[in-house]
Amino acid sequence: MIIDFNDIEEKVVPHFKGGEKEYCVRTHLDSENRIMRGVLHPGASIGYHKHEQNSEIIYIISGKGHVLYDDGEEDVEAGQITYCPMGHSHSLINNGDEDLAFLGIVGEHHA
Amino acid sequence: MIIDFNDIEEKVVPHFKGGEKEYCVRTHLDSENRIMRGVLHPGASIGYHKHEQNSEIIYIISGKGHVLYDDGEEDVEAGQITYCPMGHSHSLINNGDEDLAFLGIVGEHHA
Repeated sequence: MIIDFNDIEEKVVPHFKGGEKEYCVRTHLDSENRIMRGVLHPGASIGYHKHEQNSEIIYIISGKGHVLYDDGEEDVEAGQITYCPMGHSHSLINNGDEDLAFLGIVGEHHA
Repeated sequence: MIIDFNDIEEKVVPHFKGGEKEYCVRTHLDSENRIMRGVLHPGASIGYHKHEQNSEIIYIISGKGHVLYDDGEEDVEAGQITYCPMGHSHSLINNGDEDLAFLGIVGEHHA
C-alpha cells in the first residue's frame, strides 16, 4: 500500500500537547499505526507527553530539533531518529531557524 | 533516545527472505520495534513474505523500488511510503539503476 503524503490533506494543530505555535501534519491512521509527516516551523514545538501503550519513532527528514526525553535532553538532526519507547515521555522542539520536517510513527503494541 | 545509524554496524544479508543479491542493514531492535536503515543495490531484493503479528512501514530515503503487495504490484520512490499492514504480504525490489535506501519500521502489535 503506497502512502504519498502529498495526497493527504495537511492539518494545522495549534499548541499540540501543550506545545508552542502550530504542528502541521499529514496523517495515515489505522488500528496499529499512526503514520505522520509533520512540520514544525521555527519556535514551534510538541509538548512533553508520555507514550503509555504505544511508542513513537521520529525520523528527521530536514532541519534540527531539541528533545526533552524522560529526565534528560537531546539534540537531533536530519538522518537521525529520536525514539520514545513505550512507557517513556518526550517532546520535540524546533529551536533552529529552518523548518523541522519529520516522519513520525506511533505504533500500538497492545492491539 | 537518539538512534544514529552511522553508529550502528552494517550487516550484509545474502538472499534475505529468498530475495536476490544482498540486503545491507543497520538495525536497532527492542521488544516493540525493529528500526532499520536498509540499502538494496541495483538488482537486489527482499523476498515476498507475510507479516503475521507485526506490520512494516518502509519510507524511501533515496532511489526507487518495485513492490509485490498481496496479489498486486506497486512502484515507490523517495519521499513515499510502502506500507504492509499486519496480516498482509510484500516484497521490495530495486529495479532501478541507483541504490535504494530506506527506513524500515517493523512494529509488534501483540507485545
